[in-house]
Amino acid sequence: MSRYIDEQAIDDIALGSSVLGSGGGGDPYLGALIAKQAMSSWGPVHLWNINDIEDNALFIPCSSIGAPTVAIEKIISSAQVIRAFEMMETVLARCATGTFPIEIGGINSLIPMILAAQKQIPVVDCDGMGRAFPEVQMVSFYLDDLPSGPNTLADEKGNTLVLYTIDGLWSERFARAITEQMGAAAVMCDYPLTGRALKKSAIPGTLTLAQHIGQTLRLAWLSGSNPIHAITQSLNGHVIASGKIIDVKRQTTGGFARGHVLIEGQRNDKGEQVTVLFQNEFLLAYRSSVQREPRQDNLLAVVPDLLSILDSETGRPIVTENLRYGQRVDVVASPCHTKWRSAKGLAVAGPRYFGYPVDYVAIEQLVSR
Amino acid sequence: MSRYIDEQAIDDIALGSSVLGSGGGGDPYLGALIAKQAMSSWGPVHLWNINDIEDNALFIPCSSIGAPTVAIEKIISSAQVIRAFEMMETVLARCATGTFPIEIGGINSLIPMILAAQKQIPVVDCDGMGRAFPEVQMVSFYLDDLPSGPNTLADEKGNTLVLYTIDGLWSERFARAITEQMGAAAVMCDYPLTGRALKKSAIPGTLTLAQHIGQTLRLAWLSGSNPIHAITQSLNGHVIASGKIIDVKRQTTGGFARGHVLIEGQRNDKGEQVTVLFQNEFLLAYRSSVQREPRQDNLLAVVPDLLSILDSETGRPIVTENLRYGQRVDVVASPCHTKWRSAKGLAVAGPRYFGYPVDYVAIEQLVSR
Repeated sequence: MSRYIDEQAIDDIALGSSVLGSGGGGDPYLGALIAKQAMSSWGPVHLWNINDIEDNALFIPCSSIGAPTVAIEKIISSAQVIRAFEMMETVLARCATGTFPIEIGGINSLIPMILAAQKQIPVVDCDGMGRAFPEVQMVSFYLDDLPSGPNTLADEKGNTLVLYTIDGLWSERFARAITEQMGAAAVMCDYPLTGRALKKSAIPGTLTLAQHIGQTLRLAWLSGSNPIHAITQSLNGHVIASGKIIDVKRQTTGGFARGHVLIEGQRNDKGEQVTVLFQNEFLLAYRSSVQREPRQDNLLAVVPDLLSILDSETGRPIVTENLRYGQRVDVVASPCHTKWRSAKGLAVAGPRYFGYPVDYVAIEQLVSR
Repeated sequence: MSRYIDEQAIDDIALGSSVLGSGGGGDPYLGALIAKQAMSSWGPVHLWNINDIEDNALFIPCSSIGAPTVAIEKIISSAQVIRAFEMMETVLARCATGTFPIEIGGINSLIPMILAAQKQIPVVDCDGMGRAFPEVQMVSFYLDDLPSGPNTLADEKGNTLVLYTIDGLWSERFARAITEQMGAAAVMCDYPLTGRALKKSAIPGTLTLAQHIGQTLRLAWLSGSNPIHAITQSLNGHVIASGKIIDVKRQTTGGFARGHVLIEGQRNDKGEQVTVLFQNEFLLAYRSSVQREPRQDNLLAVVPDLLSILDSETGRPIVTENLRYGQRVDVVASPCHTKWRSAKGLAVAGPRYFGYPVDYVAIEQLVSR
């Protein structure tokens, strides 16, 4: 089953992707603008079901890489996207049948729409994470031992780099160092895959899921029902904190936006404090009223489970670069794809990888404590 | 006129290159070992006069990049050299007619010999500096506005990167960041050139010059004459300081070996102190007995002129990574190629580029003060 994407669908996907993107993947407003511009210039976009793709066809993903704090000022151009993509086709000496998002996030879900519109190729309804993660190797393809290379990177000045790496971890190391030199925001293609590999390893149906979440939120606004409740239901998630943002610390360092946000309870839980740590994406939430540091016994939610910070009034997701003092927010946590709960999944994207001194506990268990 | 290079010539070139290399380009002992190993495995090396090459032929240089302090422990392999070179041939879709050293320095003069022996191609008697410099864009080709890209970089693990950059400065930025990730020592090919471009822009005859200097030193040992005097004559240089090394400060940072060496006079100039600053190469020498910082009025020699630190007894050049407390040394300065004394040459590789608060003064003028 395949279908066309219209402007309404772009808005819904942008919104839903930002909920699934765990605060990362870039500002959905920018993503929607870029995708709609491409569609109005070159025509509509075709979304393919992953089950319908041919084994031997080639699919090349494309995304932004760097610190979203930079990307909101130095916006990626479609010329950069096309250059990175065409360089990949050149080094593979083969044209791509289609494209797909490497992750689900506000901008990164929608960059493939630029390619799809301009090149008249389909977008496959899937991604490599089922959410957004900060690092290159944090994709289902890496868990399944697929090669990451070749990778291509393009900046806005005309520099284009090709990396033939031995694995996704080395792609991350080189791409991050290069992205810093490119001014902490660049465009990257990695994990060019055959249809067979994509079907075997990708998280299927995630663009449709994002669209469904965006739609749910929009319908909640129209019907006047509670948007937080609507999102929580469609994510199978849990509200783990509500309150006012009383502190945001954010540093753009090492090619990432890193920091924490401190939320203080305002109603029944007045004075209760919750801290959410992030590295491009929200990674860990814990009760910080008593202990300042995350510990096994004050955990509220932990990566690779999804964490979203939503505006309490509208339910709109707030990405890490848009967090501000005084925002009234709900923090919603929901289960990640089961691939991330495997031993390898947790080694690649669990809390200890990010240097947090805690073990992973599934959100379902944490809320039943 | 072309000729074959034998083992004796390799030793002479290694020695002479280290004199011309201004303390950079790597340990000549390692360079000679690597080149002789290649020649004993694959056969002799043919050296071509630059005037004899065809306009339309392709020449690809190859060198090590990084901190020489690392390269003496993590020695480059011929497999790395071949991989970087063959990747360049692949991306240009063309086989090289020959190779040449990008700079004259202990290891970097001799890496082309590995390629020449294994690939049975000639080495062209020239280089891009007439000495060694620390950064990628510091070549005559950059002064002549030739494109630096594509560049290829290879590490010892199997990662191979291709850079299509807009100019040599961007090649330096990306290559340096990548080299840091590769462990501060890697192999690079940049400035692939046609015969016509090479003839127009390279510094000609520098391998023969290096061999001549090495030979002069060797003959001085045999005849018992003063080796420092012999070198100074063949370089048209000047002994600007003599004494004992009483301090070496060296940091491996940003993909470079940076620091300074302090030399105290021992004979007539007892108590006089001279400081030599380096970033892979020796860049600036000044009298530091009274003022601790370099100033226009205490300058002894300054980049792009050549600076060598020689063992006072044997005249052997000491590269920056081999400087030690207690060594008795002579510091010899000599004029650089005239290309470096142009306005662009001084902008690219003059003292202000390196952050020193002094203007360039030619060594001939400094010694006549």
